[in-house]
Amino acid sequence: MSAFSRFTALAHSLPATVPFVGPEAIERSRGLAVTARIGANESGFGPAPSVLEAMREKAGTTWMYADPENVALREALAFHHDISRDNIAVGGGVDGLLGEIVRLVVEPGTPVVTSLGGYPTFNYHVNGFGGRLVTVPYVGDREDLDGLAQAVRRENAPLVYLANPDNPMGSWWDADSVVAFARALPETTLLVLDEAYCETAPADAIPAMETLIGQPNVLRMRTFSKAYGLAGARVGYAVGTLGNAQAFDKIRNHFGMARLSVEAALAALKDQAYLAVVVDKIAAARERIAAIAAENGLKPLASATNFVTIDCGRDGAYARAVVDGLMEHGVFIRMPGIAPLNRCIRVSTGPEEDMALFSAVLPKVLKRIANSE
Amino acid sequence: MSAFSRFTALAHSLPATVPFVGPEAIERSRGLAVTARIGANESGFGPAPSVLEAMREKAGTTWMYADPENVALREALAFHHDISRDNIAVGGGVDGLLGEIVRLVVEPGTPVVTSLGGYPTFNYHVNGFGGRLVTVPYVGDREDLDGLAQAVRRENAPLVYLANPDNPMGSWWDADSVVAFARALPETTLLVLDEAYCETAPADAIPAMETLIGQPNVLRMRTFSKAYGLAGARVGYAVGTLGNAQAFDKIRNHFGMARLSVEAALAALKDQAYLAVVVDKIAAARERIAAIAAENGLKPLASATNFVTIDCGRDGAYARAVVDGLMEHGVFIRMPGIAPLNRCIRVSTGPEEDMALFSAVLPKVLKRIANSE
Repeated sequence: MSAFSRFTALAHSLPATVPFVGPEAIERSRGLAVTARIGANESGFGPAPSVLEAMREKAGTTWMYADPENVALREALAFHHDISRDNIAVGGGVDGLLGEIVRLVVEPGTPVVTSLGGYPTFNYHVNGFGGRLVTVPYVGDREDLDGLAQAVRRENAPLVYLANPDNPMGSWWDADSVVAFARALPETTLLVLDEAYCETAPADAIPAMETLIGQPNVLRMRTFSKAYGLAGARVGYAVGTLGNAQAFDKIRNHFGMARLSVEAALAALKDQAYLAVVVDKIAAARERIAAIAAENGLKPLASATNFVTIDCGRDGAYARAVVDGLMEHGVFIRMPGIAPLNRCIRVSTGPEEDMALFSAVLPKVLKRIANSE
Repeated sequence: MSAFSRFTALAHSLPATVPFVGPEAIERSRGLAVTARIGANESGFGPAPSVLEAMREKAGTTWMYADPENVALREALAFHHDISRDNIAVGGGVDGLLGEIVRLVVEPGTPVVTSLGGYPTFNYHVNGFGGRLVTVPYVGDREDLDGLAQAVRRENAPLVYLANPDNPMGSWWDADSVVAFARALPETTLLVLDEAYCETAPADAIPAMETLIGQPNVLRMRTFSKAYGLAGARVGYAVGTLGNAQAFDKIRNHFGMARLSVEAALAALKDQAYLAVVVDKIAAARERIAAIAAENGLKPLASATNFVTIDCGRDGAYARAVVDGLMEHGVFIRMPGIAPLNRCIRVSTGPEEDMALFSAVLPKVLKRIANSE
């Protein structure tokens, strides 16, 4: 391996892994081409035409670093949410922000509470800083708020992760339950509330921004990667108290944002009409996926996200066979990694051509698996 | 401040600072507009027209995450350098890569050797992981290779930083001296060789890629931010042994690269003809800046970079007055932060309109300072 001999003991102990294998890697390793890219919860509906126009128009400004203080974007977000720009920290998507939060809180051995089968990238960061993951099983395919709260207290954990709506299950809690959970946490436990999928959730699932903004042990995460259709731009933001927003400035890569990505986010925020149209399309595609699942004797779970998780009714090996079988036909989807969630497959919403291919291919895949058993 | 009460002790101890104040922040705080942006060592010559074309053409792919393994870019870079893609790690500019390297090596109290007045962002990352900076003064406005080597041995430091060519002084060592320095280091000391400015250096200043590639205690850093004109894209790469390139995979944000930035880098690498033209323009602009300095009784230092550092012959307060005075006329430049380097100002190369404005304004600024004394 010929690596440097004196990396930290922690660095030595870590595997060189990626939290998610990308569709490009699957194409390379299996020699297959992706036709319907509906596995990474990206938005095949794409960003708004106005966003693409802004990106093309601003391409020539790429010779300049982006403003390291991200003032224009923070001001636009502040206006959008009716809060102060000082309550906002901008980062490289939720993934980048999660890494920074973990770094601010976690030292080797620090207990961190999350759900068993929850977001792997959060776990990757916790492991990367030597934290000790304490996992709480889902109950009824939802994150278990009571169980998470109990684990926090039992472990005296300084950090707990909750995604609402949830990935990979698509489930959600109502806003009142989330707020009650946040308020009941010890002051010494920071809640990372990942709201990457908030735009596609029922209105009553998302707490109003002012409800938790003054609470020093809550940070809310938002992104332009999902409904806004800008996964490749890598723009997310955290909302919290002034002190928490500023804490990112202690450690973040100040010159880390791509200038055109920031321009894209600014343009996307301006085009709320397009967002509304896409949210409707996502809702319709959820129905479509659910119907396809039901037609094939599978059970779609209710979803507040831009994907639908489908219970295949058997074990992880069966779901894996479905995922792999679909890929043989160019349909890229994913599945939860851990039992009992891994009885399911996870299908992202997308344009009708993707849905049609999924619909055409799924029965063939299921039949082939049945025939081979 | 209302920050969370249980950030790590290290996080508590860190200030919320930015390594460099951006020109946008100066515009905001002083109510002035930048006309000539020649302070951040960006390239006002911009990226190639072919790069802008590629970015506009690929804008529509931004709904997809970039390949987390960056295979296409690593393969293109491998072809360009005639090395293996397995020797290359891609990251968010040199700044992002430096943060990752520091994280792999530095724990609280770890001694890290660099030059006194060297790259502030490296120091920022070292401080951010609790490292202890050991600084070696420049000698003759160059980094002191012997002094750095001695400090490494004295402190038993696992990490040493060297920029060749150097920022902020523009000076350089010949390749043989750099190679000798690298080979004489203890195996237990990792050399971060920052070659951000290599494209504009004399050919004999940059070691051939194969010379150091098998050495496990060397990592070389390259970027698309300087001569390639893509500072705002945030694409850099590290070249080293297979084991060292893979070490980044243990901790990096795998889904951290902006898709369009990667496309821009791919297109830039293809257009070496444009790069050659820009390198000539940069060389001509260095001559222009040097002539302007001399006309005004100041002493330009020789430069292997895309900027010229100018010795103003007095103290840091005087150089600061020159920098501030230029900004009043819309000319944004910077200066080294630490004595004795801070007797200088640092002017980035740029198009003739920027050079002309600098030429027109500098004598006025110097005269006004003289009159006020």
